[in-house]
Amino acid sequence: MNSEYVYINEVGPRDGLQNQKTILSSEIRLNLINHLIEARLPGMEVASFVSPKAVPAMEGAREIIQGLIDNAKGCEISVLVPNMKGFEMAAESGAEIITVVPSATETMNQKNINMGLEETVKSSCNIIKSAKSSNLRTRAYVSVAWECPYEGKVESSTVLKIANQLLSAGADEIILADTIGAANPSSVGLLFKQCVDEFDHKILSGHFHDTRAMALANVCAALSEGIRKFDSCIGGLGGCPFAPGAAGNLATEDLANMLSQMGFKTDVDLQKLSDAVDYCSDQLKAPLGGRMSAWLSKQK
Amino acid sequence: MNSEYVYINEVGPRDGLQNQKTILSSEIRLNLINHLIEARLPGMEVASFVSPKAVPAMEGAREIIQGLIDNAKGCEISVLVPNMKGFEMAAESGAEIITVVPSATETMNQKNINMGLEETVKSSCNIIKSAKSSNLRTRAYVSVAWECPYEGKVESSTVLKIANQLLSAGADEIILADTIGAANPSSVGLLFKQCVDEFDHKILSGHFHDTRAMALANVCAALSEGIRKFDSCIGGLGGCPFAPGAAGNLATEDLANMLSQMGFKTDVDLQKLSDAVDYCSDQLKAPLGGRMSAWLSKQK
Repeated sequence: MNSEYVYINEVGPRDGLQNQKTILSSEIRLNLINHLIEARLPGMEVASFVSPKAVPAMEGAREIIQGLIDNAKGCEISVLVPNMKGFEMAAESGAEIITVVPSATETMNQKNINMGLEETVKSSCNIIKSAKSSNLRTRAYVSVAWECPYEGKVESSTVLKIANQLLSAGADEIILADTIGAANPSSVGLLFKQCVDEFDHKILSGHFHDTRAMALANVCAALSEGIRKFDSCIGGLGGCPFAPGAAGNLATEDLANMLSQMGFKTDVDLQKLSDAVDYCSDQLKAPLGGRMSAWLSKQK
Repeated sequence: MNSEYVYINEVGPRDGLQNQKTILSSEIRLNLINHLIEARLPGMEVASFVSPKAVPAMEGAREIIQGLIDNAKGCEISVLVPNMKGFEMAAESGAEIITVVPSATETMNQKNINMGLEETVKSSCNIIKSAKSSNLRTRAYVSVAWECPYEGKVESSTVLKIANQLLSAGADEIILADTIGAANPSSVGLLFKQCVDEFDHKILSGHFHDTRAMALANVCAALSEGIRKFDSCIGGLGGCPFAPGAAGNLATEDLANMLSQMGFKTDVDLQKLSDAVDYCSDQLKAPLGGRMSAWLSKQK
């Protein structure tokens, strides 16, 4: 049995909710975040400083951040910013961890952020530098790190180059994201192996989607390469609005349960996590997708 | 990339259908089996020679076997037998591969087959010996090999002892079954490692359920130990009627897709497999569960 610690970063309140049919008020999202804090998730992406016109579901990011100041009980709270304007709003509202999400291909960046690859990486680097000079931590994604819905397979050299640029700018963490759930355990193992050869494994993290059922198998492949930090999303909610074919994220309850069963430590309280899934499901008026939430519900 | 062959044994027509609300006639089951043969599954468990009173969904095993004689196009057809009477009926009907399913615990055997552990293993060994003397091949399961819904964790020494007894009687294949989906990649890797140390890996196979979302991750753990043969079930149907908590089997479309993405050879035609899932779903008047079937449907 393995007793190493694995860090789970919950992305439900942002990645999970940004694209749901039912839009939840910032007050309800704050309730959900507090449920998740009670379930002892060590990190959480709670909001996105985007234009509410572009993504109505993310309105009220400032209220959420301010509602969490002094109330996060040790949970590391992060917010996504798409550009410098978003960064300035996030910093002004009191956010302490900033997330940037450049993609590894030209077209995906155009669709997601209306800029080309070089321009997006440059913009992300500028945000990271500004955050550094304000003593804020930064999480930098490389989105569509394995496959792009528009351009197909992504070369690992491209991913490594972008990761190097983001780290040189001062990023504290690099998250490789399989945004459309197209990676498999072999390709995940290969790319993380190359990254671990070049970077400290402690600054690396994986973000997987369960579109083709391989999310947990991909986590295992990353675990084998020494990765100990993963994103996940309660109930397997989510999917990128700008990436066709991206279905649900890896469900937090499935990840937390597997890690615990494998003997890893996570601190996550599965029963309280199940309560958070139930709360979210009630608010969205829809059943959520994680296998473990169905299983836990049957045990109640 | 790995180009080794992995053998997929489809268990949908037996394990998948035995416990559905909608009972399919043997004619419809034969249609489904023919769809699956077209999808080039190399092996298939097609029927169970149990009493139709005990399991009404399995009525007509003889008709199914006789409908497949000379029509299986190279697909290796197997049938489950619970006891010597079932074996005699199977052999008489023309079945060529016989499956026995002893469980690793006292209580599970009592619930499943109304005999204790020692008696069940002895009965299975007698069936294997009779099959041998009739020149029939035998597949022998060790059910609840990791965890029993009644007795909890199962010792690996128990599993190895039963496997040895079955092999000594002449079994051609040993399948370790995670009947209630309670195994995890660590425990799967450990048990298969012990088995591979003792037996030829070519006679070993894995049978996983996706109850807690870990089926594909468990397959990967077994692949790492050299296992190249797995059961799966179209649409993730199934679950044991006598094992509380056993939800769907690993979906064949999810397994075949992952193996193909990882670079393994399987021969399976994913599109024809998707057609078989659609046919089965239409007949059962219910959506099926594999992630890839949902994904493939969206591409149509």
